[in-house]
Amino acid sequence: MIRAGFIQFNPELGDPKKNMESLSALLDKSAGANLVVIPELANSGYNYESKEQAFSLAESADNGEFVRFLSNKARQLNLFIVAGFNELDRSKLYNSAMLVGPNGIIGKYRKLHLFMNEFDFFERGNLGLPVFDLGFCKVGILICFDWVFPEVWRILTIKGADIICHPSNLVLPYAQQAVPVYGLINKTFNITANRYGTEREVTFSGRSIISDTEGKTIHTAVKDADEVFITNLDLDKSRNKMITLRNNVITDRLPGEYLDLTK
Amino acid sequence: MIRAGFIQFNPELGDPKKNMESLSALLDKSAGANLVVIPELANSGYNYESKEQAFSLAESADNGEFVRFLSNKARQLNLFIVAGFNELDRSKLYNSAMLVGPNGIIGKYRKLHLFMNEFDFFERGNLGLPVFDLGFCKVGILICFDWVFPEVWRILTIKGADIICHPSNLVLPYAQQAVPVYGLINKTFNITANRYGTEREVTFSGRSIISDTEGKTIHTAVKDADEVFITNLDLDKSRNKMITLRNNVITDRLPGEYLDLTK
Repeated sequence: MIRAGFIQFNPELGDPKKNMESLSALLDKSAGANLVVIPELANSGYNYESKEQAFSLAESADNGEFVRFLSNKARQLNLFIVAGFNELDRSKLYNSAMLVGPNGIIGKYRKLHLFMNEFDFFERGNLGLPVFDLGFCKVGILICFDWVFPEVWRILTIKGADIICHPSNLVLPYAQQAVPVYGLINKTFNITANRYGTEREVTFSGRSIISDTEGKTIHTAVKDADEVFITNLDLDKSRNKMITLRNNVITDRLPGEYLDLTK
Repeated sequence: MIRAGFIQFNPELGDPKKNMESLSALLDKSAGANLVVIPELANSGYNYESKEQAFSLAESADNGEFVRFLSNKARQLNLFIVAGFNELDRSKLYNSAMLVGPNGIIGKYRKLHLFMNEFDFFERGNLGLPVFDLGFCKVGILICFDWVFPEVWRILTIKGADIICHPSNLVLPYAQQAVPVYGLINKTFNITANRYGTEREVTFSGRSIISDTEGKTIHTAVKDADEVFITNLDLDKSRNKMITLRNNVITDRLPGEYLDLTK
């Protein structure tokens, strides 16, 4: 049994310092958790006015201020954190999520499926779909609009993820319906850490969710306020892929019939 | 705009004659529809006591009594029917679904993912995942437990299915939650024609559903009575795969990232 959950908050566009202050207080409230998921682009805000602004709010994954902040909090609180941020690497931007733990940086994921105007700012992710073994559990990461693509949930499951961490800045009203179903068909726990608030006429939907391996929503956050939610997750349930006495949601797959998906 | 829907009923195990009588009356009530979906194994019932009983209730797809019955009704009522049946072919049984129209047999699908004791009676399907072009729409077919596997919904979508017909004898409580989400992520209309009733201690869940391309359930049937439900479907919606002005649920896929699914 582990304790995991999400932080929902309202990042301020263009004010990383303020965002770290907000997150610091919210992370303190999550003390005792093993794993906490924080929304997409939590350092910078989302709806950049220009490419210049997007670059001005980006930072390195190795030694940027936001990643150092996350590492410090993870060490202080003895927990693992998955947090979205605007990543600068060799003059390119990525919509990334960092995974840090009590001993520092573990790895990162770069969003594969870009949404709307993100195409104007970010490169498509180029690090594939890693699964990270934290010892007590294995985690995969997807970011926001990646939710539409059943392939990526499936791949992370096949690679052994117990928990799929899903930092988000959701605008469409659909993910809260779909994410628990991905948990049902893959028998994973899924944590969607969403933001709320409005930036330059784009409104985010809050209602962060954590769902179980039978497709049930364990908790849905409110739509427009800060919230820290941590719960117990029994990883025996994500490691047992049997859905009946004779059926397994993974080994019953028939890859020979699925070849079309690679075209 | 076309008219499509489902028939929910309670097949009698071991009494194909009675089942055809029931279906004849229910099909008459669907007059005016273009496409009607009927549950899995609608000729025979589901929970066979023995291999002998399973064989005794099976019939040929070419000239069996049930398929002739369906073809006659389709011609009389000028509609297309997708119906599950117990198919005998060269001394092997398949859990199949027949597609017939006003001009006779169009094709069939054989269930790929077998459930529980079905492994004792049926061969796994060997006809792949066909999509049938009816002129006014393209239909794919999945049967019952196939619902767990996101791959097959995706493949039928990529092959052009507007409507995925899903004859079922559902026992688990999950499909009614998942099927609309497959419609959302693939932008297809999905029709789950379920049965109700109890056979030798197995109870089926009724609650047949038809869902739209935004994941909304258009209608859910009751859990334990006959029901015929027909509605208008706007196929422009299943042919437009854009989910935002700049995002398409199919062409935004990144097959190069999905190779693991073929292993």
